[in-house]
Amino acid sequence: MLTVDDARARILADATPLGAETVPLGLARGRVLARDVVARRTQPPQAMSAMDGWALRSVDLAEGHRTFRVNGEARAGEGFGGDVGPGEAVRIFTGAPVPPGADLVVIQEDTRVTGHHDSGAPAAVEITGERADAEAGDNIRPAGIDFQTGAVGLQAGRGLEARAIALAAAMGHPWLPVHRRPRVAILATGDELARPGEPLGPDAIVDAVSPCLTALFADAGADVVDLGIAPDARDRIDAQIAAARGADLLVTIGGASVGDHDLVQAALLAAGAEIDFWKIAMRPGKPLMYGRLSGMPVLGLPGNPVSAYVCSLLFALPLIDRLSGREPRDAASERLPLAAPVAANAMRQHYMRARLLRDGDGAETVLPVRDQDSSLLSALADADALILRRPHAPAAEPGELVDILRLDRLD
Amino acid sequence: MLTVDDARARILADATPLGAETVPLGLARGRVLARDVVARRTQPPQAMSAMDGWALRSVDLAEGHRTFRVNGEARAGEGFGGDVGPGEAVRIFTGAPVPPGADLVVIQEDTRVTGHHDSGAPAAVEITGERADAEAGDNIRPAGIDFQTGAVGLQAGRGLEARAIALAAAMGHPWLPVHRRPRVAILATGDELARPGEPLGPDAIVDAVSPCLTALFADAGADVVDLGIAPDARDRIDAQIAAARGADLLVTIGGASVGDHDLVQAALLAAGAEIDFWKIAMRPGKPLMYGRLSGMPVLGLPGNPVSAYVCSLLFALPLIDRLSGREPRDAASERLPLAAPVAANAMRQHYMRARLLRDGDGAETVLPVRDQDSSLLSALADADALILRRPHAPAAEPGELVDILRLDRLD
Repeated sequence: MLTVDDARARILADATPLGAETVPLGLARGRVLARDVVARRTQPPQAMSAMDGWALRSVDLAEGHRTFRVNGEARAGEGFGGDVGPGEAVRIFTGAPVPPGADLVVIQEDTRVTGHHDSGAPAAVEITGERADAEAGDNIRPAGIDFQTGAVGLQAGRGLEARAIALAAAMGHPWLPVHRRPRVAILATGDELARPGEPLGPDAIVDAVSPCLTALFADAGADVVDLGIAPDARDRIDAQIAAARGADLLVTIGGASVGDHDLVQAALLAAGAEIDFWKIAMRPGKPLMYGRLSGMPVLGLPGNPVSAYVCSLLFALPLIDRLSGREPRDAASERLPLAAPVAANAMRQHYMRARLLRDGDGAETVLPVRDQDSSLLSALADADALILRRPHAPAAEPGELVDILRLDRLD
Repeated sequence: MLTVDDARARILADATPLGAETVPLGLARGRVLARDVVARRTQPPQAMSAMDGWALRSVDLAEGHRTFRVNGEARAGEGFGGDVGPGEAVRIFTGAPVPPGADLVVIQEDTRVTGHHDSGAPAAVEITGERADAEAGDNIRPAGIDFQTGAVGLQAGRGLEARAIALAAAMGHPWLPVHRRPRVAILATGDELARPGEPLGPDAIVDAVSPCLTALFADAGADVVDLGIAPDARDRIDAQIAAARGADLLVTIGGASVGDHDLVQAALLAAGAEIDFWKIAMRPGKPLMYGRLSGMPVLGLPGNPVSAYVCSLLFALPLIDRLSGREPRDAASERLPLAAPVAANAMRQHYMRARLLRDGDGAETVLPVRDQDSSLLSALADADALILRRPHAPAAEPGELVDILRLDRLD
């Protein structure tokens, strides 16, 4: 049997990020840059005032001048338009360009207007605050302090969360080069399955896995193509496998073992796929099919909903990350104390469904759900973590630390 | 000055979840249930086999029978159709209904077919494994073990991640009642602003805040209405505020203080808004406007991009959560050792941009970025955490623990 880590490594070894496409800035959120993004402008483009106040010459202050002739105003978006000479000051607002000549902004709170023109505009201003420590550059943001034209602001491979979008915008980019979203085809199989809301015979159950994986993969940034439910009939399965051509990943659900009624593997082989059938040392989810069909990776998940979900977390999501240009997410674990005993583990790595509890002091413990049967969707929906029990881990008592995976950070 | 916690509490005190709408299961991901969802069916609908094997009567095994007459087959989606009598066995596959009479499934690996019909179908099967411990119920999932018709499977207020979608599907729901997505209108103001890619005068800068907040709010589940950039002219601002009617939240950017060129507050008051203008004891982001216009909450953010971003994390995202029916996210902090010294803090709570570092052993430390100027989008894009420095916190040395907020869990 393969270990979980080995299976993950083999799947990722075959995969590379998809090609680039150009998207509008407003649709780039969540995507991954395919190329470095370089500043097209300098920010700020000129020295800018960081405060509301008065722009003047530091040399005047150093020489003891305290009252200044006001000769205009500089606003954000509309500069003063002239120079600031000896003994002169310009009224300036936050974000306004600092006029040539001035090298200092004295903040409003340290000043008092002492004379007005007939228009009501200030004609003279007195510096009232302690300005002994005033220095050239005070309350001024120099040109280019954020970035300069030509600087690489965002590197290829960078995920575009809101902060990166802000920087790309500021650098002057209305379009961004990003990796294509993976198109993931999902094919469920089984005579017993019907879609939610469709009529159900007495022996039928609802296909809960397709909607679950559709949500999971879409959250991971994939475009999901739902190929529907194929009955246990080779011709129907063959047709749906043919319909998956053009996808970047095909995920099949059920029918992937070698039992009498498991037809997916046979259909894939007949279509020319190279298939490995792996028994992975894990539960839930021992059987996993992995292969390639004309270059397209194929993952064959168990039909059991909890097994399909856990296998998707461990194998499909990292693969979608890699195809998207992202670092494949790792089930990076943290350790928390158990709230109840767990038995010794056998040879398969066990992902136990569990709930996080918080005591009055905010300290967290983790409680395995009572019934670990892998058919129980109610227990999975109640869980907010998985306890990772390694092969042959001994029994553990309440208070002992165990490895956990938080589902809200994986799915 | 208000504390951050007080400001957050005041904003949330006014807000309640938006009304319900019905969405298809396939569009419900990320939404929040507005009502309890009750199982419309029992799962499994009948006792089902958990394994491939043979269904038979435990009493036969207890009486020492080891060879059984095969009288048919039960598959997933197609039951056997008859009863299992004394000395009889039915070939059964995983997920198939257990036929009446049988109360046990012996797994395939513990059996051997010992006779065939002319058709090739098995006629007799021998139990070869050690079955001394076999009990009624072995390898059978009883009817209703996952859920029974009428049970509340998912409660109002539950967020619909992939696991909850799976359970809703299994319970037979093609449609779900969810809270409406908040419609959030964004209005930027300032003569100096232009959209990315538009022509820029020498005194102009690019509006990076609107695209940033659009991404941030969309990630939080809002429908964003971008009202564009209004110049510093009252009639234009008035018109855009009128255009925000019907939104569930109006977020303005810039122009919200009481400076000579700050017109947003005046325009909101003229439109009939009740406005509080708060100085919040935080940086970046001291000035925050909060009010209500005909019942619609209005948040007035500073024009500075980093301030607008941090204020959005702390105040806008929790409000969007509440409107969406979700528990408002808390900037729940964890503590990490400093990688460099930090100075004593003054009276305002300081959110320092910082990078998470990981040493060879995987232990994390946190390094403040060098320049904490709130105009630097490049520093914000480089940051992956904020260090929370409380008012009057003393200077701290490398290795001392500080509170941090991980940006990847907030934005």
